[in-house]
Amino acid sequence: MHILITGAAGMIGRKLVARLVKDGQLNGQKIDHLSLIDVVAPEKPAGFTGAIEASTSDLSNPGAAAKAIAKKPDVIFHLAGVVSGEAEIDFEKGYRVNLDGTRALLEAIRAADQKPKVIFTSSVAVYGAPFSNSIADDFQLTPLTSYGTQKAICELLLADYTRRGFLEGVGIRLPTICVRPGKPNKAASGFFSGIIREPLAGQEALLPVSDAVRHTHASPRAAVGFLIHAAGLTRAQLGPRINLAMPGVSCTVGEQVDALRRVAGEKVAARIRREPDELVQRIVAGWAERLDAKRARDLGFKAEATFDDIIRAHIEDELGGKIVA
Amino acid sequence: MHILITGAAGMIGRKLVARLVKDGQLNGQKIDHLSLIDVVAPEKPAGFTGAIEASTSDLSNPGAAAKAIAKKPDVIFHLAGVVSGEAEIDFEKGYRVNLDGTRALLEAIRAADQKPKVIFTSSVAVYGAPFSNSIADDFQLTPLTSYGTQKAICELLLADYTRRGFLEGVGIRLPTICVRPGKPNKAASGFFSGIIREPLAGQEALLPVSDAVRHTHASPRAAVGFLIHAAGLTRAQLGPRINLAMPGVSCTVGEQVDALRRVAGEKVAARIRREPDELVQRIVAGWAERLDAKRARDLGFKAEATFDDIIRAHIEDELGGKIVA
Repeated sequence: MHILITGAAGMIGRKLVARLVKDGQLNGQKIDHLSLIDVVAPEKPAGFTGAIEASTSDLSNPGAAAKAIAKKPDVIFHLAGVVSGEAEIDFEKGYRVNLDGTRALLEAIRAADQKPKVIFTSSVAVYGAPFSNSIADDFQLTPLTSYGTQKAICELLLADYTRRGFLEGVGIRLPTICVRPGKPNKAASGFFSGIIREPLAGQEALLPVSDAVRHTHASPRAAVGFLIHAAGLTRAQLGPRINLAMPGVSCTVGEQVDALRRVAGEKVAARIRREPDELVQRIVAGWAERLDAKRARDLGFKAEATFDDIIRAHIEDELGGKIVA
Repeated sequence: MHILITGAAGMIGRKLVARLVKDGQLNGQKIDHLSLIDVVAPEKPAGFTGAIEASTSDLSNPGAAAKAIAKKPDVIFHLAGVVSGEAEIDFEKGYRVNLDGTRALLEAIRAADQKPKVIFTSSVAVYGAPFSNSIADDFQLTPLTSYGTQKAICELLLADYTRRGFLEGVGIRLPTICVRPGKPNKAASGFFSGIIREPLAGQEALLPVSDAVRHTHASPRAAVGFLIHAAGLTRAQLGPRINLAMPGVSCTVGEQVDALRRVAGEKVAARIRREPDELVQRIVAGWAERLDAKRARDLGFKAEATFDDIIRAHIEDELGGKIVA
């Protein structure tokens, strides 16, 4: 089996590559060929015995998409894209990379007539306030960012290309990924990870919103699990509605802090400093608090059961089991 | 006021032009300039005293959109597009005209920095079965045709360009337009008009589905009214969700026939011949039967109250008040 991963140098991309190399198979078939592309050079993983190519490519450039699929991948994990904040700041870049890049990939697939599976990472940013208390699977997409708009458009394209028989698509709407490894970033959602990651590493973290703010999270490990699981679904299981909201742990910030205290102790939890930030509060107030994700759960997608589990996954996967107590 | 109409040679386009010329004003402002474009040459209406241009243009051709808006229209009615059947048969043409043409128009508007009102005709084809009994305003868009996909994508673009302040958009999802004037066509929905139009003209009409089939209709006159009304709405009235399902008369085919009998007599209604067609039955079964259209009604959009009114509008507007009894 030949697998292509776009956005392979990103956080989820790297973890997906590592998981596929470790598993050695997908849907019961041996992986003998990996193609990794990204706008920055993806690293080749250690320990993979099959053919592997890692190349720098922007799918929105002419010919790039056709080249990316020239060796006929059976499964494509399409993760490439610019993130929410960047798509909002740079309107043209967001549409070029997130919409035109995806469309170029779909068009190249149509032209090549090879019908691969295409797993596309969408986002809960496709939803826009006002919301009902919990977002049902049939809730409309009225995004309030250009990023969310681009993801929603790509979902529609993926569904139409699937319906027409050009490929077999699955779109998965990822909740906020928490705990994100690495350095703090400027994303408005950054604190959801920061208030866990920094205290576990012995550092202070700022909490800009009230303890009552509710949000839905899944670990990077769960996100990789969603991608793998999506690749195993059949057309019959999916039916015509191939874009799915993923499950996650819905909890308040206060519950996140309580979980940190339970898992790592009072001293770690005390490293969170409350410093209200009105701008962040306003942005976060427009986000989905809870998703039913009933279809995804019924189809066997699994997120963590509790936020404690999300913290433990971070400690195992990123900190080698060690915390700075 | 300068008004641009794309798709001005189409059925709704011609009726909209005639109405604007008759009214002489829009939103209380005198219309002193009309620009009409279409892929076939639009006719210049009689009796308009202002400046008028009618030109042949395909917005998806390079430079066409910039040229179309070069004289800075205040209001743009964007009706241009290929119809459902054609977009399904010719995949590339559908995406080129319906998606790329619309995006080119929006991009030209963004580049020109002139913030016009843009009234876009979307369609109930943005919905795809399975449905609830009546489609609520917040129901998801899961189209089952490439045409519906293209309309849904354009709605998303229109909303994002509006949110970003590049223009002031309103998308109106038209129900099936009935009674369509002119000759019978091959559209699967054609019989909804045919069973009224042909008998009123003294001709036999075939009815391929059962009397129990339910569907939602609005007259061409009502559709023009929706467009005019949409142009008068303020951003504050619309809020962030600028794409609206339009109201219509939801009735069964049997109720259509009863209305024809009431309005035109038994002899006219007897010209309908039942000839079941399984293919048409299957296609129609995937269509929306009823739409809440609550937001549109609350915003003052008005359709006919009964199917009798729809028939009467046809007799007045197309037959000069005369029927072949």
